Amino acid sequence: MSECRAWVFTLGNEVVQGRVINTNAAYLGRRLMLLGFDVRGNISLVDDIELISEFIKYVLDRHAPKVIITSGGLGPTYDDRTLEAVARATGVPLRLNEEALKMVREKYAERNMELTEDRVKMAYLPEGAEPIPNPVGTAPGCWLTVGATIIVSLPGVPRELEAMWEGWVEPRLRNINPGIYLSERKFRVVGVPESAAAPLLKAVLKKYGNVYVKTHPKGHEIRAPMLDVYILASGRSRDAVERLAKSVEDELKKGFTELGGRLLTEERE
Amino acid sequence: MSECRAWVFTLGNEVVQGRVINTNAAYLGRRLMLLGFDVRGNISLVDDIELISEFIKYVLDRHAPKVIITSGGLGPTYDDRTLEAVARATGVPLRLNEEALKMVREKYAERNMELTEDRVKMAYLPEGAEPIPNPVGTAPGCWLTVGATIIVSLPGVPRELEAMWEGWVEPRLRNINPGIYLSERKFRVVGVPESAAAPLLKAVLKKYGNVYVKTHPKGHEIRAPMLDVYILASGRSRDAVERLAKSVEDELKKGFTELGGRLLTEERE
Repeated sequence: MSECRAWVFTLGNEVVQGRVINTNAAYLGRRLMLLGFDVRGNISLVDDIELISEFIKYVLDRHAPKVIITSGGLGPTYDDRTLEAVARATGVPLRLNEEALKMVREKYAERNMELTEDRVKMAYLPEGAEPIPNPVGTAPGCWLTVGATIIVSLPGVPRELEAMWEGWVEPRLRNINPGIYLSERKFRVVGVPESAAAPLLKAVLKKYGNVYVKTHPKGHEIRAPMLDVYILASGRSRDAVERLAKSVEDELKKGFTELGGRLLTEERE
Repeated sequence: MSECRAWVFTLGNEVVQGRVINTNAAYLGRRLMLLGFDVRGNISLVDDIELISEFIKYVLDRHAPKVIITSGGLGPTYDDRTLEAVARATGVPLRLNEEALKMVREKYAERNMELTEDRVKMAYLPEGAEPIPNPVGTAPGCWLTVGATIIVSLPGVPRELEAMWEGWVEPRLRNINPGIYLSERKFRVVGVPESAAAPLLKAVLKKYGNVYVKTHPKGHEIRAPMLDVYILASGRSRDAVERLAKSVEDELKKGFTELGGRLLTEERE
């Protein structure tokens, strides 16, 4: 595993100063674990380009991880300078990326909005990087290979970050660690509001390190609660992973039933 | 402000790998901000003493902050080695601290438990450090001055960390930044469960950087919800701080009323 070390950077004043709780760190840490990465640390820094590039360079030089993931600082405002920090840390200059520019242009055209200089800024990526499409927001992500390290930069808005991770980044990272098996399961439950399910999920996440669990509310939290429950398990043996996913599913189903929920056997999404 | 820089270290595999959400980072970041510290970053690392001491030393040497706060890794198990990492990073050797030993001994004596070698380990602090009493759990915290930097180490369990912060650490840190005013307010509301109040609190915390808000449930979440709401505001002008605390209180009271809550004018705690 030691060649597959990963580091996470979660950037932004709001995270460091506790104005938001850093759920991206937990999400990225767990998803990387599931792909077989040895996640060594998470570094949150204020919006200071010197500081961010210093720490990215330090981790690159000293720890030479296989993957660095950054979140935050990709937007159009003056303090969104993560890619400038990546460029400075790696010595790869920023260039206007035509594919990224196309993505940004289309996003604003859809809303009949002008392509201002601040918006074009989001299409400047380190030379040779690939833009990552953002299906939810406007700022493209960035996939950059520098020596033996892949640096992936994603926006800080959790909905955007998660959509880009699941739709684009994770499928690519899966190929880096061969021999990792994944198993997904889903079921639907009615009669339990998401807030009542929270302690159950928390307990399962704490108990199993290599499982990711999430609920997606489909009904109405109070009047008619309905939840889709998603389970993702991973490991180095296909059988063990299937068993793990099954036992987590059973444990959750039992827990939901105890909370007064009714399980729907057939999926109707 | 630049002499009053602060860094936070939140340590433990469970944080880095996303088995728990790092609420300590947000708590410490915000409380430090309120005391007038310029919080530069939060570094979460896995339980690896080499890695932890390397990063503490790096931040000390390179950024020379006024304060470093660490959370996690103070317990009796083999992977609880934060103070060893602090000792290594600072060059201050660990010694059995008599005052800390007394704290640990009393905790176990209360429960008629033996003082094993693993438990005595919690009383080894860097030479010259002061133990911080832990009113909730067993592991004492540690207050160490190294050159111009204060290194405060607290346990990772949020209830313990918060009790030690509020009861012991914060009163001492207040003296470091003169000219910072604090204002506290409290009120009680009935009829709103804590889970329904969560979005309201989240919005206020996001809106005001220099305010800390917390609800303490006193009744029963579903049957008879009752909440004590606590507000802490800070700033460099006494008048501005009072106004800020007042407007946050008004905003929250309005929000709770809209959620169907009834405000109790008299406090009966």
